[in-house]
Amino acid sequence: MAKDKKLVEAITSMDVDFAQWYTDVVKKAELMDYSSVKGCMVIKPAGYAIWENIQGELDRRFKETGVENVYMPMFIPESLLQKEKDHVDGFAPEVAWVTHGGLEPLQERLCVRPTSETLFCDFYSREIQSYRDLPKLYNQWCSVVRWEKTTRPFLRSREFLWQEGHTAHATAKEAEERTEQMLNLYANFCEEVLAMPVIRGQKTDKEKFAGAEATYTIEALMHDGKALQSGTSHNFGDGFAKAFEIQYSDKENKLSYVHQTSWGLSTRLIGGIIMVHGDDNGLVLPPKIAPVQVIIVPVQQQKEGVLDKALELKGMLSNFRVKVDDSDKSPGWKFSESEMRGIPIRVEIGPRDIEQNQAVLVRRDTHEKIMVSLDELDQQVRDLLDDIQKNMYEKAKNHRDEHTSEATDLATFTKTVEEKPGFVKAMWCGCQECEDQIKESTGATSRCIPFEQKTLSDTCICCGKPAVKMVYWGRAY
Amino acid sequence: MAKDKKLVEAITSMDVDFAQWYTDVVKKAELMDYSSVKGCMVIKPAGYAIWENIQGELDRRFKETGVENVYMPMFIPESLLQKEKDHVDGFAPEVAWVTHGGLEPLQERLCVRPTSETLFCDFYSREIQSYRDLPKLYNQWCSVVRWEKTTRPFLRSREFLWQEGHTAHATAKEAEERTEQMLNLYANFCEEVLAMPVIRGQKTDKEKFAGAEATYTIEALMHDGKALQSGTSHNFGDGFAKAFEIQYSDKENKLSYVHQTSWGLSTRLIGGIIMVHGDDNGLVLPPKIAPVQVIIVPVQQQKEGVLDKALELKGMLSNFRVKVDDSDKSPGWKFSESEMRGIPIRVEIGPRDIEQNQAVLVRRDTHEKIMVSLDELDQQVRDLLDDIQKNMYEKAKNHRDEHTSEATDLATFTKTVEEKPGFVKAMWCGCQECEDQIKESTGATSRCIPFEQKTLSDTCICCGKPAVKMVYWGRAY
Repeated sequence: MAKDKKLVEAITSMDVDFAQWYTDVVKKAELMDYSSVKGCMVIKPAGYAIWENIQGELDRRFKETGVENVYMPMFIPESLLQKEKDHVDGFAPEVAWVTHGGLEPLQERLCVRPTSETLFCDFYSREIQSYRDLPKLYNQWCSVVRWEKTTRPFLRSREFLWQEGHTAHATAKEAEERTEQMLNLYANFCEEVLAMPVIRGQKTDKEKFAGAEATYTIEALMHDGKALQSGTSHNFGDGFAKAFEIQYSDKENKLSYVHQTSWGLSTRLIGGIIMVHGDDNGLVLPPKIAPVQVIIVPVQQQKEGVLDKALELKGMLSNFRVKVDDSDKSPGWKFSESEMRGIPIRVEIGPRDIEQNQAVLVRRDTHEKIMVSLDELDQQVRDLLDDIQKNMYEKAKNHRDEHTSEATDLATFTKTVEEKPGFVKAMWCGCQECEDQIKESTGATSRCIPFEQKTLSDTCICCGKPAVKMVYWGRAY
Repeated sequence: MAKDKKLVEAITSMDVDFAQWYTDVVKKAELMDYSSVKGCMVIKPAGYAIWENIQGELDRRFKETGVENVYMPMFIPESLLQKEKDHVDGFAPEVAWVTHGGLEPLQERLCVRPTSETLFCDFYSREIQSYRDLPKLYNQWCSVVRWEKTTRPFLRSREFLWQEGHTAHATAKEAEERTEQMLNLYANFCEEVLAMPVIRGQKTDKEKFAGAEATYTIEALMHDGKALQSGTSHNFGDGFAKAFEIQYSDKENKLSYVHQTSWGLSTRLIGGIIMVHGDDNGLVLPPKIAPVQVIIVPVQQQKEGVLDKALELKGMLSNFRVKVDDSDKSPGWKFSESEMRGIPIRVEIGPRDIEQNQAVLVRRDTHEKIMVSLDELDQQVRDLLDDIQKNMYEKAKNHRDEHTSEATDLATFTKTVEEKPGFVKAMWCGCQECEDQIKESTGATSRCIPFEQKTLSDTCICCGKPAVKMVYWGRAY
């Protein structure tokens, strides 16, 4: 395959330096750029279009479950942030503070929202009076700010885009059901749309959200064997309701506190897509989320009829998101660029193909070339996109499974973390001391207590006391 | 018509106190709520759904003209804001300043974006090198902050949602064309989708955007005769390009500055929809933007078959955005509520209607009741929605025309502004002194120099010197 050297040589091989490979890909695939604001990024069209597709699909799934969108202020008065003690302890050290409005100092500092539980609670305390007002199933799409010390494009940024859902319910049971429902919604979305297999489970107390009774998580495994927390769903019980006085009167006119949840998923997931599917030629996008699913590259486009034919093919593929690359770059450069950008299918069409009423389809995931008759183009592309989507999921799942180990003693555990990066399943006694010690000695954190449990041994790998749960451990982003 | 007293009595009549009527409607129609953050609001589901429809329709129209979406940081370093002198003079007095990140003071203050010209310019200065990189046609959907002293829901808020487009072009001509193209896109959108007639024209130098060579505007007239600037499009020439060193090399390798535009439209427009179309029963939404186009209200819903029939009608109307109000409120309350929320068509269906295979359609705009056979329901609703959309535009246009006057001397002008609120067309010499004096003595500002000119007289109504342009004047929000 003709390939322009310059573009490919610009990427570090992922086996040589995965972190550098990642940085190269986000830049060369034109997903983002650094900005003049330290720790914040510019999301460029190719990156933002992925986010728009994530938004569109998730938003549709949210609304099917009765969720409505709202918009809350981006500022939180300091006194409001402080109302729930665990919450403020968790977030205060990493927020940005607005101290002046125009030329005047503010009477009370405002933080730029790191998350909006406090704003929603404040709103709900006025909005909810009766059982008729429940449930409240609100979500917002917005940006949030966390003043991180070290940042990486998409994965950890001082400002990022996300959605945050905040619900209020009459009963603890309903809140628990919603928490699980949204986690499953996230998991299904990741697996079906992003072709990214995830482990569903609960966070340990140490790792749960500041102010939550329980945090559920989906954990994905990246190509380098590190885990990525990809979405979380929190059950707050009535903790926030008590701090913010959110009560409703039931049918018997009795006052009760509401039970709340929140759940969020962010542009971090774009980093996940890159690190699960990418290769040494660049990005590989699952067809369902790819802003461009098919790129048509005319070969010898200056010859009469070639560009016209390319445009005709575009018309034949109107069921898909298609672009024709009619720029004045060389075909080799265009091939290389379409790979860098992760476009699932490339259609190559030149004078000889036109004569024979055919075109060459090239799969981004396997590099396989398929000669197809133009009469069957639409159907072939449809089948191929389906197959690519399935294949990418299978490949990622195989990789995940191959990089998931079990350990029943600390020596094996430590060796595995070091020598075979990935998830390590191991039994745990349930105490934070062991969790801390494992992290300190191996760098692996508890990723989750999976819903699907299995007893690997009877004792905690760390302290040897009776085990209560099997936990997924791993180094993580 | 049975109507629940409580809901209607909650609204002040618009003729008694228009400002209070507006505040009552935004609250009772549940479009927004005040928040604990002074000057910022909570946009509730009914309000946000209007914004989502505005976004969807505008975004589609933008993309048809080649525009791509991106996301820039929400912060601007102080030194960056200061790069273009007119721009910083215009915005610095009304921005919010972040001075601390986490527990540490920042080395340089960051303002929360009041608009993002400086960020886009900074980005373009790195992104644009060659003529091949042009044009850049970028847009972002985001929130911006301006530290206003007095605020009103949707119309003037310390934080508001908007889109801001920022383009860079090789030539002055292209930039001018894009500036006009986007203004026309806004105007067509307002007229076709929001049923809101607008005057297209240019702002005077005094009223133009800080840093622009020319600002174009669309101006709508509210029910109370005050104007609302509803969208603006700016041609920056190469002013920002020179301040930020944004140059490209052309085909002959010669360096030139780019020419830029920006254009924005905000949630302010929701205030415009309310004030153009609303009445003493509440909101009146144009069908094309209404989140719910048809509400089905079952009458005697406890009777067997009524609720089932209501749901059956919903199924028959699957081409539209339909809701069934099956709450346990009284029909009278539901009627009243559907009017307050501005839903274009209400379908009433009770046992007697079911017997006769019919339903009652009630138009929100005229209150007309129409008996229709269920066999024709879909077609009747379609026709009625079209008719409501047209009628609302015509009504608004007639109102606008009836409240547009001409004046050829200052005494008449002043009397008209005072006694017949609306637009006043009058000739102007082109100097800011006259503009200032007119504003000071009448409260009317120059709304725009309309593209469609007409010579009303030869002299400026203020100073009597030769006139150069006809201007629309008026008091404004």
